Amino acid sequence: MAEKPENTQVVITDEQIFDAHVAGKLAIGLKSPLDTQRALSIAYTPGVAQVSRAIAADHTLAARYTWASRMVAVVSDGSAVLGLGDIGPAAALPVMEGKSALFKAFADLDSIPIVLDTKDPDEIVETLVRLRPTFGAVNLEDISAPRCFEIERRLIEALDCPVMHDDQHGTAIVVLAALIGASTALHRDMKALRVVVSGAGAAGVACAKILLAAGVHDITLLDSQGILHRGRDNLNTYKAEIAEQTNPDGRSGGLAEALKGADVFLGLSAGVVPTDLVATMAPEAVIFALSNPDPEIHPDDARKHAAVVATGRSDFPNQINNVLAFPGVFRGALDAGARRITEKMKVAAAQAIFSVVGDDLSVDRIVPSVLDPRVAPAVAAAVAAAADV
Amino acid sequence: MAEKPENTQVVITDEQIFDAHVAGKLAIGLKSPLDTQRALSIAYTPGVAQVSRAIAADHTLAARYTWASRMVAVVSDGSAVLGLGDIGPAAALPVMEGKSALFKAFADLDSIPIVLDTKDPDEIVETLVRLRPTFGAVNLEDISAPRCFEIERRLIEALDCPVMHDDQHGTAIVVLAALIGASTALHRDMKALRVVVSGAGAAGVACAKILLAAGVHDITLLDSQGILHRGRDNLNTYKAEIAEQTNPDGRSGGLAEALKGADVFLGLSAGVVPTDLVATMAPEAVIFALSNPDPEIHPDDARKHAAVVATGRSDFPNQINNVLAFPGVFRGALDAGARRITEKMKVAAAQAIFSVVGDDLSVDRIVPSVLDPRVAPAVAAAVAAAADV
Repeated sequence: MAEKPENTQVVITDEQIFDAHVAGKLAIGLKSPLDTQRALSIAYTPGVAQVSRAIAADHTLAARYTWASRMVAVVSDGSAVLGLGDIGPAAALPVMEGKSALFKAFADLDSIPIVLDTKDPDEIVETLVRLRPTFGAVNLEDISAPRCFEIERRLIEALDCPVMHDDQHGTAIVVLAALIGASTALHRDMKALRVVVSGAGAAGVACAKILLAAGVHDITLLDSQGILHRGRDNLNTYKAEIAEQTNPDGRSGGLAEALKGADVFLGLSAGVVPTDLVATMAPEAVIFALSNPDPEIHPDDARKHAAVVATGRSDFPNQINNVLAFPGVFRGALDAGARRITEKMKVAAAQAIFSVVGDDLSVDRIVPSVLDPRVAPAVAAAVAAAADV
Repeated sequence: MAEKPENTQVVITDEQIFDAHVAGKLAIGLKSPLDTQRALSIAYTPGVAQVSRAIAADHTLAARYTWASRMVAVVSDGSAVLGLGDIGPAAALPVMEGKSALFKAFADLDSIPIVLDTKDPDEIVETLVRLRPTFGAVNLEDISAPRCFEIERRLIEALDCPVMHDDQHGTAIVVLAALIGASTALHRDMKALRVVVSGAGAAGVACAKILLAAGVHDITLLDSQGILHRGRDNLNTYKAEIAEQTNPDGRSGGLAEALKGADVFLGLSAGVVPTDLVATMAPEAVIFALSNPDPEIHPDDARKHAAVVATGRSDFPNQINNVLAFPGVFRGALDAGARRITEKMKVAAAQAIFSVVGDDLSVDRIVPSVLDPRVAPAVAAAVAAAADV
């Protein structure tokens, strides 16, 4: 079933990319054709009035007779798009269309992109509260830190449906799955690994948290100013909070100080990691260079000094990409009728992703292929089973 | 090409209607499959970053490389759904899904339903302004009068894209087309007809305005309190304005006073018209009983006293339904790159609808079948030609 990953970069021209995006990547489809009087009388007037009357009398019927309850809104303000930064909602839309397409392709969930011309957390929360009857779940996407933490927290409180900021939790789930895979392939104890996380934004903080929860205790985070430690006075609330729980040896300095002797490098920023710094890592190093579209270090260079190398890209082996997680996570949450996506559900998702690799596990196959059709159903089943409903 | 309308009511059971609505009527489709590494690398990472970068550098490229610029948001607050009244956004959703399905089926336009959990005009306008990068046009639907007038006016000012409240202008366009058809079939001068409009809400006011613009000068409107005349002191701004332009003979009273000797009855409210009142109309009367799902008078009863009878339903002949107008109107406006849907474009749409009937014109065929595939392209072409761009 599982495909072998390709070990050479796929050559794709800009022209091919732009041609494939003309008029966008999504289309609305009709579940049944509207080409007879009978079909119109059922789907539109007068028939539809019966359905509207029934829902007006019993609002719970909306879940059965509309698409909304299983439809995922992919919501962004365009403030932190891929590794490109604050490029705005219009420029973010191709990414959101891609995300909606992935929901459909991998989990058979309908999904619409919603790009917002505001970056104000109050306005974003308020807008989604007003749109509530339109959708059944919210996938927040490419919203910059630290706003993303507040926006997600407030939406989880305000909406009675699953809400997940994928850049945080989707990334954390697949990184945990991949680190379980890498340490298993190397016959090492994951909990004993010294992990360096470059990037203390949405993904970095969420990854640190899920790794801590999984028992990894030596984690060091860096932001653009260097290592996060308790003595630094320029940390926002979220960084200060994670600094309390990480960097047990009280390191300070920059990437050089952090990487020397480290076991794992987890790259989640748009920065560059020089090859000579990678050479200072411990033997059998693990490198996850996940910045998109440009990894922090080219996999061919990283491979010279590391035992396991992974990126976020689909054109290299070991693709640590959120698409392994989010379709199944939302599908499982919606299948279970869950109102929240809990930490327990996220950890169950990571374990399900790892479990699909099975006997194919190797240093070049620490996670399943993103194309493996077993992943989303396995994740959905694990997430649904872990849901509190 | 044109189908003959069915002259008997189509029998559809509630079970068939509800079965057809399970899980809703829409689905997201992918323009190309996402089942290879290559496809993922193009549509998602890393390829999509090229497209996002290009749009960030030149926002006008969003029109070319996303679905938004030709995507119609079908927006409702559920305050005036069909003839059912204020049943709320969740119960309105089946109607909006139906509308989105019709945009796709008749004009090949992608469309998403957006139902809002607020009826505050400020909040509705504000919400759509924030959503602006998500869509390319707004079809307002089933929003109660007089709020709908203010909301539409303010959105037309605030958004640089076509905005049309279909209950007003879609209805007005098809009513004008049908009255051209009816008067032509009866060899009568449309401008000389005495028209009674039952309902002074969104549709009633818009129909009166388009008929006045088309040269009909004797129009009398009624609301739930009776005939609108200049002496009434309980009229809102919009009713007072239209009362100034209508009822030239200063009639007062109720439906009985209005209908006696009238040539045309245009029913746009949920009221009931007794058969004995219809009998008091002038010879060769024209009855458009457009309330949905229940016409003001059953077509079989109306037929006993009228030369032309039409309803809004798809299961009777002479279906005067907005679906003849809105798909082509939005398609034409978007094809032309129009920022506004002007009065000139609306009248052009009505003439295009009438023109499709051609030699098939008869008292039982005053408008084309809603299934006639020639209608939307004809309307779109006429609307695009009439656009100021």
